[in-house]
This record gives sequence, C-alpha cells and structure tokens, in this order.
Amino acid sequence: MKDMSNLDDFEVGFDIPAKPGMDESEIQTPCLVLDLDALERNIKKMGDYAKEHGMRHRTHGKMHKSVDVQKLQEKLGGACGVCCQKVSEAEVFARGGIKDVLVSNQVRDPAKIDRLAKLPKLGARTICCVDDLANVDDLSAAAQKHGTEIECLVEIDCGAGRCGVTTTPEVVEIAKAIDAAPGLKFTGIQAYQGAMQHLDSYDERKEKIDIAVAMVKDAVDTLKAEGLECDIVGGGGTGSYYFESNSGVYNELQCGSYAFMDADYGRILDKDGKRIDQGEWENAFFILTSVMSHAKADKAIVDAGLKAQSVDSGLPVVFGRDDVEYIKCSDEHGVVKDPGGALKVNDKLKLVPGHCDPTANVHDWYVGVRNGKVETVWPVSARGHAY
Amino acid sequence: MKDMSNLDDFEVGFDIPAKPGMDESEIQTPCLVLDLDALERNIKKMGDYAKEHGMRHRTHGKMHKSVDVQKLQEKLGGACGVCCQKVSEAEVFARGGIKDVLVSNQVRDPAKIDRLAKLPKLGARTICCVDDLANVDDLSAAAQKHGTEIECLVEIDCGAGRCGVTTTPEVVEIAKAIDAAPGLKFTGIQAYQGAMQHLDSYDERKEKIDIAVAMVKDAVDTLKAEGLECDIVGGGGTGSYYFESNSGVYNELQCGSYAFMDADYGRILDKDGKRIDQGEWENAFFILTSVMSHAKADKAIVDAGLKAQSVDSGLPVVFGRDDVEYIKCSDEHGVVKDPGGALKVNDKLKLVPGHCDPTANVHDWYVGVRNGKVETVWPVSARGHAY
Repeated sequence: MKDMSNLDDFEVGFDIPAKPGMDESEIQTPCLVLDLDALERNIKKMGDYAKEHGMRHRTHGKMHKSVDVQKLQEKLGGACGVCCQKVSEAEVFARGGIKDVLVSNQVRDPAKIDRLAKLPKLGARTICCVDDLANVDDLSAAAQKHGTEIECLVEIDCGAGRCGVTTTPEVVEIAKAIDAAPGLKFTGIQAYQGAMQHLDSYDERKEKIDIAVAMVKDAVDTLKAEGLECDIVGGGGTGSYYFESNSGVYNELQCGSYAFMDADYGRILDKDGKRIDQGEWENAFFILTSVMSHAKADKAIVDAGLKAQSVDSGLPVVFGRDDVEYIKCSDEHGVVKDPGGALKVNDKLKLVPGHCDPTANVHDWYVGVRNGKVETVWPVSARGHAY
Repeated sequence: MKDMSNLDDFEVGFDIPAKPGMDESEIQTPCLVLDLDALERNIKKMGDYAKEHGMRHRTHGKMHKSVDVQKLQEKLGGACGVCCQKVSEAEVFARGGIKDVLVSNQVRDPAKIDRLAKLPKLGARTICCVDDLANVDDLSAAAQKHGTEIECLVEIDCGAGRCGVTTTPEVVEIAKAIDAAPGLKFTGIQAYQGAMQHLDSYDERKEKIDIAVAMVKDAVDTLKAEGLECDIVGGGGTGSYYFESNSGVYNELQCGSYAFMDADYGRILDKDGKRIDQGEWENAFFILTSVMSHAKADKAIVDAGLKAQSVDSGLPVVFGRDDVEYIKCSDEHGVVKDPGGALKVNDKLKLVPGHCDPTANVHDWYVGVRNGKVETVWPVSARGHAY
C-alpha cells in the first residue's frame, strides 16, 4: 500500500489541465483551449443563417463530442438536436439530456442495435440510417423487444464513397420496408457529401453538390409519389451548407467544424475566393503548447506532438504568428522553426490543428477561456466512444 | 430529470468494449485487442536478451500507457522500471505502484517541476532529463521545498534533433551543476536516437548509432575523468537495442514497441534482411473492427477510422489476409477494398495499426484475448496524460 499521508498537497488538478478562475498563463500544456467569445459568435452566426433560410440545424456532435458544446449550440444557435456517428456517442448525448439524437451512420452489430433500441428510454427521439434491406428486420425486432420506436433515414451515397445506396429504386425499396416494419418509422433521407467539403474551390464544391442534390431530389420526389413523405432530408457541412440551404430539397443541416474551425477547413475558399477562416468563421479551437527545450538556437521544441493532435490533414499552424513555424512532430514533441530565436523556454503558443474532430478526440478536457481567464473546464464527454 | 427506472437492462458494459469471459466474437468494435500469448512471448524474449547482454531494461511506458502492461514487463521481462515522457504519465505509473520512474524528457514548466518533485512521496525513485543549465536551479528548489530527491540525466541529442545538448563540454557543465545542487543527484546520461529507429536498412541504422555511441562514450569518459560516474547510460529502441547492448557504454535499454509491434516498425529489416515482424517480434496489438456496410460490391466499410487510430505512419494493415486491403479512412469509417466480395456485414478484421503509441492513446481499454476468449480488460491508464 502506498502511504498517502504526505499527499495533502497533491492537487486534484493533476489530472485536469486548468481550473476555472485561473489565469490563462497557468494552464497546464498541452491541452485544448476554446476561445469562448469566438465559439459563441460562430454558433450564433450559423444558427442565424439556418433560421433565415428556413432550415433546421442538427449540429454534428461527432466533431466536439461534448454535451456542453451541444447545449450551447441549442441555446445560442437554435440547434434542433444532435447528430453523431456511433451508438456510444448517442448514449452520452442522450444521458446528458439531449432530446433529439440522430446516429448518422449504419448500426449493424446486434449488441449495438439493442443499445440503440433502448435510447428512447432516456427520453431521446432516436434516429439512425439504413442502407441495406437486411438491416430493417433487426432494427424492428430490437425496437419491438424494448417497446420503443426507432426512426430511420435511408442513407444515400451522394459522392462520399462510404455507406449508402446509390439509386432511387434502392432508396424506395428500403423506405417501404421501414414504413412497413413494426417499431420503426420512415423519417426521410440522409445524404451527406463528405468528400467534397474540403475541396478548396467553391465552384468545384458546387459542382459536386449539384450532383448530390439531383440524386436526393429524385429520391424525395419518387418517395412522395409513393406516398412516403420525408420529415428529414439531412446533410450539409461547413464547406457546403449554403448549397443545401438553397437546394429546395434539404431541410436539415449537419454542420460541425464551423464552430471550432481548423487549419484544413480554414484553407478552403468562399465564393469570393477568400479563405473561410478569414471572415466566415473564427478559429475558436486551439492546442495550447509550451516550449520545453531550446537547446538549438534556431529550433524550439514544444510539448504537443502526435498524442495531442491528429495530423491526418497536415501539421498544425501557429496562430497569430508568422515568425515561427511548426515543422515536424513525433509522439510527444513538436519542432518549431524559430529562425530569429524569438521563443524562450515556457513560452506558450496556440496551435490551430489540421483537423479538429480527431484532435478533440485525444483530449479529455476543453479549457474555455475569456478575457485571459479560464472560465470553464468541460469534459470531452464522448471522447473515445467509438463503439 | 431523466427517468432511469426502466434502465435496469442498460449494461455497465456500454462504456467498455468487452467483459472477461466473453467470446472474442462478442467484443464491441472498434477497440484494441491484445493477443496475450504473443505479448507475453515478446516481453519474455526482450527480457531474456537484456539479461544475457548484462543490460537493464527500463521499458517505455509512453508506448502502452498501461500500469498492467508495465507490471507484466517487470514480472516476465525483468524490467527495472519504467520510462515515460510526461510528468502526468509518471504520476499514473507511480500511483499504480511502479517504483522506479524516469521522465525521459525535459520538465520546465514550474507547476510540472513542482509535481515531479512530489513523486518520490509516492514511493517512486524519480529521474528526469536536463538539457539546459537554467533548469537545474528550478529542479533543485522544488526538491528542497518538498524534501525529496530528483535524480537527473543529462540529455544528449545524438541525432533525433529534438531536446538535448550536442557537445561533451555542455554535458559536463550541466552534470557538474546537477552534482552541486541540493536535492538533486547526477545519475548519468540519456541518449536515445529516435530518428533512426524506423530506417529500413540495418546498416543505415548501425551507421547512425555508431555516431551516437561515439558521442556518448566521449561524454561518459570525460565525466569519469572529472569524477562523475554514470549510474545510468540510457537509450535504445526496438530498431536499435542490439547496437546499444553491444556498445560497451550504454547500460539501460528503453524499448517500447517490441511488445506490441506495429505496421511501420514491422517493415524495418534485421541484419539478415528479414522484416522484424516476421520472426523477431510478433504482432500482439490490433484494432478489432467490424464491417458495417457493404452497399458497394467491391468495398466494405468498417467501423475503425481516424478516431480509432493514428495514421501518421501510414494506414493499418489487415492482419492475416491478403484478399482485402484497408485503403482509406475518414473520422469514423475505413474503406476496405474487397475485390472478391469476401466480406459480409458484421465480419470482423484485425488491423495492425501504422503506429502503436498514438493509436493506443485514443483508446480507453485494452481487451486481452487468449484462445478466443476475453481474459482481461485493462485500462489505458495514462491515456490522454500529455501534460
């Protein structure tokens, strides 16, 4: 047994990077920092846009995995509910009090289907996607077993090349089966074009979405002719929401990254050829990192490496500085080129990560900062909930 | 308030991918699976090697971040203690009962130095690295404040290009300062050549290590002439441990990946030109994933994407199969080329991740499997402990 008697001075905080009330300079690095003012402005802006365009906005919780951020999106941005990608995420949101939860993905494993069918008992409207006739009976049996209702969207692959059917006859066939299945309700279409969101050119993105809109319109019209109305026609991301909003066929947006922004999304261009992180959205999401070694004159070593971020979409960008550059990383180290020797040990930098979603997923906490002070520390509630 | 009265049938397991006693086929995916037989053989083999070569083996806990794996390495592999990269990891290992803990990294932030100085109160020998004279006073003051002793290694950058000094006079200057500082003890040299571990060619790796060994030997000899003995001369990884073991100057190895193996390390070649994952080490570490959609005939979509792994060192490899190939991934999806249509929905695949360390760091649990049954579920105890 360890003698813990001398450990009164071990702060609880040794597992948490900051405490509310702290000065920003006292935050333990590396950790995630949210600029609360910027976050709130982003959320309000997208909420206002959706409202003005007669769209519901089902914010994508797979991006932030945070009940607290989702509640802010509902409060300030009028979000109608959450979408997420995994049953285990849906469980976290439902347990956290979110009332309308879409798993915008296929649910096939018997144990996952069973867990999904129990979600309505937590008070959440429960929706999932279907792209295979063989799934309908399993979902129906589970809903009946638990005396619940699962709403189903037929997923169309409109260009992402992942899940989803690709023809209207397949959509109609699955929709009819859902409509006829006890315990299930046919609720509409899921059609998210994920592959085009990160194309730099606005016109190239529009070209891809035009194809998606045509596919979805054909399916919705055909379903209507068959007597099946779509309550939800959902899709749209940070790189495309204006297209879906003006399509006349989609009625629910599913944007995620707009709230945080990241380096990869930030590089895409709006219709005027301007980067979307220079006016359309603000960077609200940072990895705070500290210089931990400067043994070589022109290189600072910082404490945020591969375990503080995902580099699948490129290296992070140092926010607000053009005199230093993050050029390399290994598990626990980042190498920052510092040709002018501007940095000193313990200096802090804010990094804009390449890709916000998988970067949020390696951290346990968001440190919310306003006016140089830590205002709040929120758990990344559904972190690691991948199953 | 949520009505929880109907939720008796919500398994505790909805936050855990498996329970001991389960059949392997019931594991919730995606999750990490350890082949316990292979893991134990790897651990024993490296332990025997170190013993036969008169080396201590301080296993690298930054790789697995698990108190349970570390204890197995001490029990079966005779490991002398743990090394890790962060004070927050060291806290987890010390609290978990590990008695000899090296932070093989610089500790510069005042709060982190304070936490480091308290670690000996948990019963752990506490060692850290130093590459800057300015750090010595801070470490000394903290150790004196808490009435503890911090042992210090001078870190040499012998080719990794991160932290560490690069000349013998610098080593000697810092070593003398440590030796003279109250609360500190000069314990030796840290010289890990991280940059060469992943070079495919054995000869190229040897060439890089020869440079490192020469630097370290010069420093150790010069220190000795100054009356400073090195209790620890530490370094060596899975791609180099035989070089350090036969160098006549190193006395502690710090291997990590050998225990789990991964696709990137697996590709490097031994002295006979054979991949090290084909004889030297076994794959013991997998991402278990399930097919969740097969709406296109030649592509299976699996449930392990960027949130179940790090792809910094390339995509994962499907273990034991050459008929299917993991070719692409997004946040929650992996695309598996299945030209023969061999896979069905809910089929499971074992993926060997590109890079084990940051992949382990996105999961909360290791599911330990033997003979097709779940034998144990271990927490990734220091997951997310990056600060």
